Amino acid sequence: MDLLNKGERVKTASRKLRLLSTNEKNEAIMLISRELEAQKGEILRANSIDVENSRKKGMKESLIDRLALSEERIAMMVKSCENVASLPDPVGEIESAWVQKDGLLISKERVPIGAIGMIYESRPNVTVDASILAIKSGNSVLLKGGSDAINSNKAIVSAIKTALALAGLPDSSVELVEDTSHEAVQEMLKMNQYLSLIIPRGGAGLIKFVVNNSRIPVIETGTGNCHIFVDYNADLNKAVEIVDNAKTQRPGTCNAVETLLVHRDIAAEFIPRVSEVLSKKGVELRGCDESTKYWKMISATDEDFATEFLDLVLAIKVVKDVDEAIMHIEKYSSGHSEAILTNDYANSRKFLKDVDSAAVYVNASTRFTDGGEFGFGSEIGISTQKLHARGPFGLKELTSYKYTILGNNQVRK
Amino acid sequence: MDLLNKGERVKTASRKLRLLSTNEKNEAIMLISRELEAQKGEILRANSIDVENSRKKGMKESLIDRLALSEERIAMMVKSCENVASLPDPVGEIESAWVQKDGLLISKERVPIGAIGMIYESRPNVTVDASILAIKSGNSVLLKGGSDAINSNKAIVSAIKTALALAGLPDSSVELVEDTSHEAVQEMLKMNQYLSLIIPRGGAGLIKFVVNNSRIPVIETGTGNCHIFVDYNADLNKAVEIVDNAKTQRPGTCNAVETLLVHRDIAAEFIPRVSEVLSKKGVELRGCDESTKYWKMISATDEDFATEFLDLVLAIKVVKDVDEAIMHIEKYSSGHSEAILTNDYANSRKFLKDVDSAAVYVNASTRFTDGGEFGFGSEIGISTQKLHARGPFGLKELTSYKYTILGNNQVRK
Repeated sequence: MDLLNKGERVKTASRKLRLLSTNEKNEAIMLISRELEAQKGEILRANSIDVENSRKKGMKESLIDRLALSEERIAMMVKSCENVASLPDPVGEIESAWVQKDGLLISKERVPIGAIGMIYESRPNVTVDASILAIKSGNSVLLKGGSDAINSNKAIVSAIKTALALAGLPDSSVELVEDTSHEAVQEMLKMNQYLSLIIPRGGAGLIKFVVNNSRIPVIETGTGNCHIFVDYNADLNKAVEIVDNAKTQRPGTCNAVETLLVHRDIAAEFIPRVSEVLSKKGVELRGCDESTKYWKMISATDEDFATEFLDLVLAIKVVKDVDEAIMHIEKYSSGHSEAILTNDYANSRKFLKDVDSAAVYVNASTRFTDGGEFGFGSEIGISTQKLHARGPFGLKELTSYKYTILGNNQVRK
Repeated sequence: MDLLNKGERVKTASRKLRLLSTNEKNEAIMLISRELEAQKGEILRANSIDVENSRKKGMKESLIDRLALSEERIAMMVKSCENVASLPDPVGEIESAWVQKDGLLISKERVPIGAIGMIYESRPNVTVDASILAIKSGNSVLLKGGSDAINSNKAIVSAIKTALALAGLPDSSVELVEDTSHEAVQEMLKMNQYLSLIIPRGGAGLIKFVVNNSRIPVIETGTGNCHIFVDYNADLNKAVEIVDNAKTQRPGTCNAVETLLVHRDIAAEFIPRVSEVLSKKGVELRGCDESTKYWKMISATDEDFATEFLDLVLAIKVVKDVDEAIMHIEKYSSGHSEAILTNDYANSRKFLKDVDSAAVYVNASTRFTDGGEFGFGSEIGISTQKLHARGPFGLKELTSYKYTILGNNQVRK
């Protein structure tokens, strides 16, 4: 089946999916969980081929770790299915309804988007998450995973398709692009006659390529150059805990802190305290000239301040006040998550108002920017753009809306 | 000032605009209305040059009519300003707020989008509408109007800039691209480092070009191939009135009906009745084979059913039931507005659920799909895409949101 044909089939499937009841969708998702469990032998075998091939090609162990599946990771996929089945269905929700003076009753109702394209790297769990979130929100999905995970993805999609057949859902509710060439991605990005949305999940290079080449609306996810500003009167014990949490609890995530901004008045005291804790945990520090006076560390370049390290590396800069902190964030931030740690009321209000990022915190770790932590149940990513979805991108953001209007033979005057 | 430089200045202006109070924005808009009035001599003189040039080039009178300004039309611009100043400010609205179990207070707040690009044809009133809607929603705007209106647009933007200076707003809150070449549009569509949204307003060709070439998120507006289905038990007197209204009240608008679908059981009675009324008003009818049995009309081609006439032309097709009507709409509609006229409850529910368009009506004219008629006060267009904004696209849709999170030193477990 060629790519264009798959696109058409996914679009056709979306017309059936949008009419399903919540129960029908939940049953299909639970059948998927059962088939993942039933076919885990095949899935693990396929995955071991991918892992072996990737090792031969010299893939880094941290990436192998993202690719490799295990009984435990399949159990996590099953758990994801149970979780998504238990979430409220956004489709059919009435956002608002009102009666106009002429008697028209207008309702704004949530509806599925249609057919969605998902382009991602070699994490097989995304194949499951994207499929079940799409189905739950009444959408079909065309999946394009990384070439290194192709065998795993084929096995997972085969299990999903068994479940779709058992549930009576269209076979093309979920389709996998098996051609892993660059040209296939380019062709997919031009299929705006079939796909209503493209979601790229991966590194900055992938996202940039998708944005520059897509005719289909794109939601960018995942780039997080996040900041924490420690103000002059912050609780420094708590500040050490929060910075430590934001940097080291899971350094590879997009909501981890990458640059620490420190108010000049407390720099001499705070920088050594936080540096000692972080250094012990293996964090490499890169500081501005002033920071290096208080702790021995590498000199930070301009590029360091612009970099999402996704690793145990932290840039540090001393600033003279909240305004300089906000200006630094405005210049370098990717618009993901930023926090101020302060006991100054006016500064907390100013930071919340002036900082233009998806999530802005007072006195908390940036690590909370997450669909689960926000109470959305699940997420497909964190959007750093301003259109349609910003911040955690969950089931509701996988829907659109339409207006239904009940009239009484009104004509326009 | 070259285009890239203008983009940067508009982006810089957006950072100031997003912090303005509602009063400051309303004052600026009222100063714009005053300057339009004060400078109407210059604006009308500039416009008369555009009109003269366009006549020389042989522009159609219907297009000249869109381009030409008059005292009355300037008075309408002034009225638009007063209207937009009186509307509620969406910025700062709390969409929802909740406390998580760990005590984090999360609020979802409306914020401006940033810098917006507007690409449109030769209607000078759009220059005013886009500017004041952008300012009211805290956004800056880079305007690219049609080359035929360049003198009018320069004069209008000059009046706007006088007002911005009086109001103390950044001069680049509103900028006009004076280079009206095709290359300038192409360059503008690549400026995603500055612009967060592009809104094309115009014909299908313009919109397609923008969608295919933009790196910036696009909201498509305005293509309306709208349908009315007259069911077997519709009130035929009312149906004639509604179809007449939807076709002839303002045939050049995107919410005018383009295809009439008639249930077979009433075709012999209804088609002659509606055709007589429409023919008297000069509507050209193009019917399927079956329709032509009931009234003398041109045979409709497949292309007729796919065309947005924007004129006194109506395609007619006889269908066997609501399902065939829905299938026809699914195939040909641009997803704008569709209506069923019926007294069958089940068919009304089915039509509302199954038809996937921005606005779906029971027993009313499609002409109501409009920001004013929906009670939004004003609109920048009607979106026929599903992301971010669908249907009437008003002030609220010119905003994004962010999450603000008030913590108590929480760290993630």
